[in-house]
Amino acid sequence: MKKTCPERSRRIYLDHNATTPVDKRVLDAMEPYFCEIYGNPSSIHLSGQEARKVVEDSRRKVMNFIGADLPEEIVFTSCGTESDNFAIKGTVFASREKGNHIITSKIEHHAVLEPCEYLAKYFGFEVTYLDVDGYGIVDPADVEKAITKKTVLISVMYANNETGVIQPIEEIAKTAGKHNIVFHTDAVQMAGKFPIDVKKLGADLLSVSGHKMYAPKGCGFIYIKKGTKMHSLLHGGKHEKGWRAGTENVPYIAGMAKACEIAQKNMADETARLLKLREKLEIGVINGIEHTFLNGHPEKRLANTSNISFKYIEGEGLILLLNKEGIEVSTGSACTSGSIGPSHVLSAMHIDPITAQGSVRFSLGHENTEKDIDRVLKVLPKIVGKLRSMSPLWSKRR
Amino acid sequence: MKKTCPERSRRIYLDHNATTPVDKRVLDAMEPYFCEIYGNPSSIHLSGQEARKVVEDSRRKVMNFIGADLPEEIVFTSCGTESDNFAIKGTVFASREKGNHIITSKIEHHAVLEPCEYLAKYFGFEVTYLDVDGYGIVDPADVEKAITKKTVLISVMYANNETGVIQPIEEIAKTAGKHNIVFHTDAVQMAGKFPIDVKKLGADLLSVSGHKMYAPKGCGFIYIKKGTKMHSLLHGGKHEKGWRAGTENVPYIAGMAKACEIAQKNMADETARLLKLREKLEIGVINGIEHTFLNGHPEKRLANTSNISFKYIEGEGLILLLNKEGIEVSTGSACTSGSIGPSHVLSAMHIDPITAQGSVRFSLGHENTEKDIDRVLKVLPKIVGKLRSMSPLWSKRR
Repeated sequence: MKKTCPERSRRIYLDHNATTPVDKRVLDAMEPYFCEIYGNPSSIHLSGQEARKVVEDSRRKVMNFIGADLPEEIVFTSCGTESDNFAIKGTVFASREKGNHIITSKIEHHAVLEPCEYLAKYFGFEVTYLDVDGYGIVDPADVEKAITKKTVLISVMYANNETGVIQPIEEIAKTAGKHNIVFHTDAVQMAGKFPIDVKKLGADLLSVSGHKMYAPKGCGFIYIKKGTKMHSLLHGGKHEKGWRAGTENVPYIAGMAKACEIAQKNMADETARLLKLREKLEIGVINGIEHTFLNGHPEKRLANTSNISFKYIEGEGLILLLNKEGIEVSTGSACTSGSIGPSHVLSAMHIDPITAQGSVRFSLGHENTEKDIDRVLKVLPKIVGKLRSMSPLWSKRR
Repeated sequence: MKKTCPERSRRIYLDHNATTPVDKRVLDAMEPYFCEIYGNPSSIHLSGQEARKVVEDSRRKVMNFIGADLPEEIVFTSCGTESDNFAIKGTVFASREKGNHIITSKIEHHAVLEPCEYLAKYFGFEVTYLDVDGYGIVDPADVEKAITKKTVLISVMYANNETGVIQPIEEIAKTAGKHNIVFHTDAVQMAGKFPIDVKKLGADLLSVSGHKMYAPKGCGFIYIKKGTKMHSLLHGGKHEKGWRAGTENVPYIAGMAKACEIAQKNMADETARLLKLREKLEIGVINGIEHTFLNGHPEKRLANTSNISFKYIEGEGLILLLNKEGIEVSTGSACTSGSIGPSHVLSAMHIDPITAQGSVRFSLGHENTEKDIDRVLKVLPKIVGKLRSMSPLWSKRR
């Protein structure tokens, strides 16, 4: 094992919605399947059958994690983005005779928005992007209103990656079910942070990513309720009961299952702990620094996520100065870092562009402690003060 | 590190075309990026930038490995199947205004055949499946003859997974180029076993899988020659210059690059070593057991692959009895294990179905030694004899 370099060990990582470190127990669970038990699960010899067993045992663990009925309802993928693309393209390509209308929301992750835009641009689909209220929540009544005879898919995320706001998925799923329309939810930010029960939820399709829950980048799964009509996204061998071709990533599948087990076991305690840390952070920032406010719903929100606007400054500047102090946060989705313009999520919440540009997401995780928050609260006011002192918006404020 | 169980350590794995163990050096190269350097490469803070550096350094190593001109011509994917699906669907969806005709061969991997069949079934594409000769080789003149005004893609594999036979890719690429048609080659079996020079080859698109070359299952890449018009397969964030959305699998990308470095360095010596081992195996089997013969071209073939027909028996029975003796081989593609009927590759070579059913693929790799081959040659005649003694085909033979 390499020694952690001192510079790294001093850093405070508060960007767990972007990605998480792999849990040491997850790495241990994966390790035997690289060099030792390395067979192809499709091979009929012993090496193959050993690998097959790991994959199927893992599938059952994941099934339990989300309360699915059948192991074959779990299909392993290479990431949340693949799960989302598969859910969306797979459903609508299989339903072209029925209709060409998709309903989604304005606050979805780009892994949902971009496939919809692609389908609209090149395959004649029509997409309704639902508004959200000032808290960033979709109104289920708006879903009902948007449905037409041509609607073949409704896709609304479970928890938003930028604000952590949790959507009324159960009600939306009910509406979809009433109209016999396939319902997909991107649960990438929810999984591991909040219990998921697909049956109670009523989703037909649910996407999960490993690396947001202490498994590695490059694994995920999709729940496909039995009977859901879809096309595959990756065609080839008959892996995953024909749903997803490609030799199974045995180590990561074992890791994904282990991460589910760990999350399931620790979720209640960890949620309580993170809530306490976050409360300390939010009270400290909002009471301690003027012209700051929380974005999103104060309660209907993931325990680890806090999206705060610092008026009169640029979020990116704040991130860079915090980074210099060894504190790592982000403006929103890592996937759109470097893109110009305010967050599409905050824009949809009608937060004015200048305030939206001054927003920062703190997303807490397993390694964070009270000491980390103390340090943030010590450093942040000075940095905000410094940035404001250089900001033309600050001097011109009323 | 876990101790290898004694049963495993006695096994002789001769199924490297199905999958390979991860090279210990590859695992070492990946290890820091699980728990220690775990940032999201899209994040602008230090943890993100550390991860970004690994990805871009790896990209340059892979670029060198295949002789590409530019790092951005390398796009990391989750497997060879994804690379193939991306190449095929990406190209033809981007060329629908130009035409709807695809040329491929009858001996492709299912990761090429199935996307073609899907496109024909649901999207109005027409596919020409080229014949091969008795050695399993596509005639470039047949490619030329198959081209129509509507042809938008030619996809012919570099080396066949079942027979190891190498195709005249340079000539086929030349033909494609002359007609301004995109040319893709599935180089999954070639990479790591034979030097690849994409410029000399003239391919526009080339697919590679990690787990066939001692990197883990679940990584791969595609070479996309600058200027090639394609749609993405996975839409979302702007990863991989917009070609492939999804947070980069940093550890596996580092592993993929390391596997390329190792292969590049050892290729000449390892090829010579494997050729010697294979010659010993083939001479031993074909001279030592009557009614056996080699499938595919004797020379134009990967050094590690030997596909041998044992007349009057079922390949699957042979595999199972060899497995009992701790020797692991396969009938052909692992991806189609359990499917009924003779191999589509051997059928295309006009090998009669009964003989094709008696075929076994030996695919050698790094760990194999002369002792392994001695053991196979000792065990095999007895097993073949036993199976033939039970076979009605054997007693009825002329």
